[in-house]
Amino acid sequence: MFGKYLKKLRENGALIHNITNYVTVNDVANVLLAAGGSPVMADEAEDAREITAICGGLNINIGTLNRNTIKGMVAACEKASELGHKIVLDPVGAGASSMRTETAINLMNRFQFDVIKGNISEIKVLACGKGGAVGVDADINDRITEKNLDKAVEFVKKFACDIKGIVAVTGAIDLISDGKKCFVIRNGREEMSRITGTGCQLSALVAAFITANPEDILGGTAAAVAMMGVAGEIAWENMYRTDGNSTYRNRIIDAVYNMSGEMLDERERYEIR
Amino acid sequence: MFGKYLKKLRENGALIHNITNYVTVNDVANVLLAAGGSPVMADEAEDAREITAICGGLNINIGTLNRNTIKGMVAACEKASELGHKIVLDPVGAGASSMRTETAINLMNRFQFDVIKGNISEIKVLACGKGGAVGVDADINDRITEKNLDKAVEFVKKFACDIKGIVAVTGAIDLISDGKKCFVIRNGREEMSRITGTGCQLSALVAAFITANPEDILGGTAAAVAMMGVAGEIAWENMYRTDGNSTYRNRIIDAVYNMSGEMLDERERYEIR
Amino acid sequence: MFGKYLKKLRENGALIHNITNYVTVNDVANVLLAAGGSPVMADEAEDAREITAICGGLNINIGTLNRNTIKGMVAACEKASELGHKIVLDPVGAGASSMRTETAINLMNRFQFDVIKGNISEIKVLACGKGGAVGVDADINDRITEKNLDKAVEFVKKFACDIKGIVAVTGAIDLISDGKKCFVIRNGREEMSRITGTGCQLSALVAAFITANPEDILGGTAAAVAMMGVAGEIAWENMYRTDGNSTYRNRIIDAVYNMSGEMLDERERYEIR
Repeated sequence: MFGKYLKKLRENGALIHNITNYVTVNDVANVLLAAGGSPVMADEAEDAREITAICGGLNINIGTLNRNTIKGMVAACEKASELGHKIVLDPVGAGASSMRTETAINLMNRFQFDVIKGNISEIKVLACGKGGAVGVDADINDRITEKNLDKAVEFVKKFACDIKGIVAVTGAIDLISDGKKCFVIRNGREEMSRITGTGCQLSALVAAFITANPEDILGGTAAAVAMMGVAGEIAWENMYRTDGNSTYRNRIIDAVYNMSGEMLDERERYEIR
Repeated sequence: MFGKYLKKLRENGALIHNITNYVTVNDVANVLLAAGGSPVMADEAEDAREITAICGGLNINIGTLNRNTIKGMVAACEKASELGHKIVLDPVGAGASSMRTETAINLMNRFQFDVIKGNISEIKVLACGKGGAVGVDADINDRITEKNLDKAVEFVKKFACDIKGIVAVTGAIDLISDGKKCFVIRNGREEMSRITGTGCQLSALVAAFITANPEDILGGTAAAVAMMGVAGEIAWENMYRTDGNSTYRNRIIDAVYNMSGEMLDERERYEIR
Repeated sequence: MFGKYLKKLRENGALIHNITNYVTVNDVANVLLAAGGSPVMADEAEDAREITAICGGLNINIGTLNRNTIKGMVAACEKASELGHKIVLDPVGAGASSMRTETAINLMNRFQFDVIKGNISEIKVLACGKGGAVGVDADINDRITEKNLDKAVEFVKKFACDIKGIVAVTGAIDLISDGKKCFVIRNGREEMSRITGTGCQLSALVAAFITANPEDILGGTAAAVAMMGVAGEIAWENMYRTDGNSTYRNRIIDAVYNMSGEMLDERERYEIR
């Protein structure tokens, strides 16, 4: 199912402009190259505008914001919107500080993102900030489990309707919805949370997948999420006794590099709700 | 001896706010995760203040300063001081430029750091800048050896008294003192200096260890220093013929990830003076 | 032939100040250490000026420019010029945005770079911007091949004359000229383009090689280019079935770390035109 999106990315490529945090930026660049895309980074407003113009998609990650890079994000979003490029928002740390919360909500209110991807607590913050139309189910706390899955699916669908885009909530179980359908994905490993940046890498992959598969943004997003999880599984199988999280980080990107559409098809674990 | 501090960190966790240089920031994040802590990075003043508030400890590293991040450091230190959080200062490059020297000394004069960690030349610069009360023994040059060890221990003790905190001087022999006791640690390998960032990683680990062990800051700091050295030793034993410094970097973080309290106890090499 | 330049770098060391993009900065630091040099990074103008003063060489890479780091580049170039330090310019993305193009051309017009290193499209942009005296052969497109090699060599020689420095154009075939002689180097592997930052690493290596070999800048630059290519070849031979671009990145730096002058001499593939 998801393999075809990966094949298309590998065939057509996708040049992605990333305004992302400086903590994980190198891994973001390498994972894009691993999947068949290409990275560019530029965050000074005037540079960001022009760099976006030569790219196919835009990935905005608010992990280590400053006043100057916020201007760069706005400039890049303006240009990408104007050109009809695909845009992804990763609201890293929304809810943890007012600057992050406000920046994410301002961007969301001002620009039409194709995909907003975060963990459940970040997405809940955005859903509240959007005006409460969606409401946040108090039963959905910081983790999506089999127990609260129905309510979580409902929440994600509602928020996707509200923003008129795709919402991807990642965790032990991943949910990706366009408001009507919701992919429930059960790939990945818990140990991925012991590495910095798998979430940032995923946002960049989502941008590359939807840029290469513009006719099916929901499927492309779900494919990127599944691929990241499958890479985490394969990478774990390749771990030796003395390996730890630093090597695991390398092996995940390596697994993306070596993954074929067929391998993804074989290992993907999803259902549609 | 030191294993118990590591166990407590792994049991309780420690969320550490890092304002650190962009050269080694990814390794800093991964080593914190490897040891059982968690990293957050934020350097814009208003963001830094709020992010510090939700963390348990603060790690300030002046490696790639700019005017904006200095404001972030001050804001974070103010908030951390107000909340009684543990704070570590790594005065990277103090003495190499006036901006670095002045920033380190200004921070040190304005805020009460729990630990100041640097190499001997950086610490000497701070000791002089502090007003010369301590004085700097001309016999202690850029390396601490068995030959000048007595004088070095005396110097570190004096400076710790002067700043009313812990001083950690790293090198072939590491010295950690609260002004009364001085741990002399002989773990580690020379090859660690052929990797960028082991010092930056250590500062973050110190912040995590003392945040998880607030009742014994001296012991926690010494434990972090010993652990980094032991990780360097274990990692070196895991090197293959074709491996070099890039792989060594990964294996050190891997060794931290896989280290148990017992392993640390077995390999630690320290004496108290 | 090239081994002697590497030996001299390992014997004498070379402290290189890098103002470089934050995407690949960690690899730049580690590759310098791998080759026998040492890295320092500082980009705030006043800090950059003083840090340059204590270094032996300067490496300017415009990959993730902002208004503040441009000031740092100018300050560092001024100081390095004043002190007669070797300076390398890597005009990453020149031609992709006006800010990058203008910054590269302004720096080039204002300062005498010992080496300008880029891919063919970046170098063509600079050659045009310099005033068209050189002219750009329309037959030389985005790749140098055996077919257009004669014209490419001629172009590189002309541009080197024009800037009165060394020009290094990297690609499947690398050309390095001082205006009279042109080294044509055929080391390296195509897979290196699937990793971020091998170009940035090379610029830093060039700075280290010419700082340690000031009496022969052309030879030193060619040696650095050949070494990076040879490292890519050795690293590829060390790849396992499940390895991908992230591990390849580590193995390339590892190969630099383990390379002796003799190994470089044995594997170098060059001709002089």
